[in-house]
Amino acid sequence: MKQSKLFTKTFKESPKDEKSLNAKLLTRGGFIYKEMSGVYTFLPLGLRVLEKIKNIIREELNKIGAQEVKMTALQKKEIWEPSERWKDEVVDDWFKTKLKNNTELGLAFTHEEPITNMMKSFVSSYKDLPIYAYQFQTKFRNELRAKSGILRGREFLMKDLYDFSLDKKHHEDFYELMKEVYMKIFQRVGIGDQTFLTISSGGSFAKYSYEFQTITGAGEDIILINREKNIAINKNDFNETLLKDFNIDSAVKFEEKKSAEVGDIYNLGDKFSRALDLKYKDKNGKEKFVYMGSYGIGVPRLMGVVVEVFADERGIVWPEEIAPFQVHLISLNQDKETEKIYQKLSKSGIEVLYDDRDLRPGEKFSDADLIGIPNRIVISKKTVEKQALEFKKRNENEVRLIDFDKLLKEYL
Amino acid sequence: MKQSKLFTKTFKESPKDEKSLNAKLLTRGGFIYKEMSGVYTFLPLGLRVLEKIKNIIREELNKIGAQEVKMTALQKKEIWEPSERWKDEVVDDWFKTKLKNNTELGLAFTHEEPITNMMKSFVSSYKDLPIYAYQFQTKFRNELRAKSGILRGREFLMKDLYDFSLDKKHHEDFYELMKEVYMKIFQRVGIGDQTFLTISSGGSFAKYSYEFQTITGAGEDIILINREKNIAINKNDFNETLLKDFNIDSAVKFEEKKSAEVGDIYNLGDKFSRALDLKYKDKNGKEKFVYMGSYGIGVPRLMGVVVEVFADERGIVWPEEIAPFQVHLISLNQDKETEKIYQKLSKSGIEVLYDDRDLRPGEKFSDADLIGIPNRIVISKKTVEKQALEFKKRNENEVRLIDFDKLLKEYL
Repeated sequence: MKQSKLFTKTFKESPKDEKSLNAKLLTRGGFIYKEMSGVYTFLPLGLRVLEKIKNIIREELNKIGAQEVKMTALQKKEIWEPSERWKDEVVDDWFKTKLKNNTELGLAFTHEEPITNMMKSFVSSYKDLPIYAYQFQTKFRNELRAKSGILRGREFLMKDLYDFSLDKKHHEDFYELMKEVYMKIFQRVGIGDQTFLTISSGGSFAKYSYEFQTITGAGEDIILINREKNIAINKNDFNETLLKDFNIDSAVKFEEKKSAEVGDIYNLGDKFSRALDLKYKDKNGKEKFVYMGSYGIGVPRLMGVVVEVFADERGIVWPEEIAPFQVHLISLNQDKETEKIYQKLSKSGIEVLYDDRDLRPGEKFSDADLIGIPNRIVISKKTVEKQALEFKKRNENEVRLIDFDKLLKEYL
Repeated sequence: MKQSKLFTKTFKESPKDEKSLNAKLLTRGGFIYKEMSGVYTFLPLGLRVLEKIKNIIREELNKIGAQEVKMTALQKKEIWEPSERWKDEVVDDWFKTKLKNNTELGLAFTHEEPITNMMKSFVSSYKDLPIYAYQFQTKFRNELRAKSGILRGREFLMKDLYDFSLDKKHHEDFYELMKEVYMKIFQRVGIGDQTFLTISSGGSFAKYSYEFQTITGAGEDIILINREKNIAINKNDFNETLLKDFNIDSAVKFEEKKSAEVGDIYNLGDKFSRALDLKYKDKNGKEKFVYMGSYGIGVPRLMGVVVEVFADERGIVWPEEIAPFQVHLISLNQDKETEKIYQKLSKSGIEVLYDDRDLRPGEKFSDADLIGIPNRIVISKKTVEKQALEFKKRNENEVRLIDFDKLLKEYL
């Protein structure tokens, strides 16, 4: 895409009402636009990143046989009363609204109740199980304060997956598989090295639970890590009993790190199937409650964490697989030559943002650093004379003069 | 995909609370699930259709340089007051909600106001225009009654595009282009022959306007058509003056047909740019209001209209380009042979729903007719003996015995 056509602009100054690094940089780069605290529009560059993250998640979930659906924001009271989550005294981040006839409705902050209720239409026998269903769906959460940029939204896209299993054993097998799938997702998104499967407290159906925590100063949590032994524990839940339960020697040393939760995986047991009466008949015709789990990833949160983890003083640094474009191609008054390179790269299937704007080199370079596309190619009088390209990775300082074929083969 | 793995089931009976054909068939086929009137979950089969329609629209809009964004449902009062559309007495289908601090918020039923407001961050000079921005975004409309299935939703996905042009002339050029783009979209979706660019009344900035109407008994509108001359007029707006204005001979004969609106294209003039103060400086440094238009397609409505137009007494009939799968492959006790065909078709890039379920042939056939995939292949003892496949199109009665290569070359 030609940058002159992109309707967004970059901004030199950070917005005054943003405190978080992710919101500052994403706003300055033209990725997001703030409608109100915790409510952001995704602009063309931001939507490209969001869609790439979604596609990674979708690919990994489809591989294990999960099926995509799309449920609704509007919610009926009747479905949330049996689990006792309708009342604002119990769940304090509901947004509520009303139909014309004054029927109270809620805006879903999660979907355990409606998906459990829906599955009653499709589950009656053990032959119907397991079911793994997921969606990318907009959640609404009436947060008192929302000042972490896209890390904590009042309206945000969430991937939520639910497993409907025969029993605890089958659920646990799937839960173990999901640990691997989640780690694969975080690796592909680019934060594998910074992300830890973290032991935390359990909820109703297990003594312990797991969450995925990514090390970042922007995080709201603190985890204790031993990298050698690959152990991470949420500081809130760290105690002698936990160490004993996981056979961890009390002499093991831990680093303390601020971190942000990027994924959670829950054993729900029969809490929701019991409340909403989701049963199946087993091989002997005996009725049993379906055993459930839920698995969440806040997609903008994940995107915001990536920004927080990799950004430097010059701007955003996108990992390859989720960058809005693979290559930022910059013409320094060599539009004819650059157009040729642009066409050649595009024909090779490479996504290129081509800076064809009539600006000074310094402005183009600082915009490229701010936007954070991982590979930068500059076409200048010098490179044309040498019949080469100037290539630089966003996260390296080295500038290479390299010919097109070698670049394509070795770096892109 | 193997049908035994699909978590949805088909239903023999229509849901008692549905009156519309689209909701009956889509529910019976396992495409949608009703949360409440006008609020539907999209199940795996339904989501596949929805995504295919979205991709057609996206492709056609990207071709003309439109840029995709994603705005928010939650809306601040301040942005809607200048255009006088905040009050429930003016716009009667708002859903309203509240922040914790009692600030009133709305759930967007459209996005003229917020996108106009947002563009103030990106538009200052004539060089910044034109901008064509669109989104696929969930709209909320507090309809008093919603009983047309997915044709009229209280919560539904809408493609809305906005043009930000220098002046009336530039807007009109784009408006003409969008007429063609919309017709191309409806052709690809499969309802080109039934869809008419229809003259209707104008709104504030033009004497006349256009909408796209598709002939269907399920429609809420009536249009007058002359197919030979390719003229369609909304019956509400039909009169002598209109005929004169469009140079239509008053002797021209029209058929009267029920129809459903599948797209609308509006000249907004400077209504919103004036209300929200979206201006640019022209070449002479003079400030002018941006000239706007808006272009909507309700994606589930379009899907529902397709169902209404093509369904027969046995079920849904999907057009090729938006079908959930291209081929419905049915094994009649020939699982080994069918598996081979399944693999071969999949390798050829064809999307196949493979009915590997342990059911009687009659049940498989009636499910295939209900689900409406355009191409059906049956593998039976007879076909295996003859080293051929049994092929039937959903919208034809002819059953062909044909070999694999010929089928692939001539029909898929």
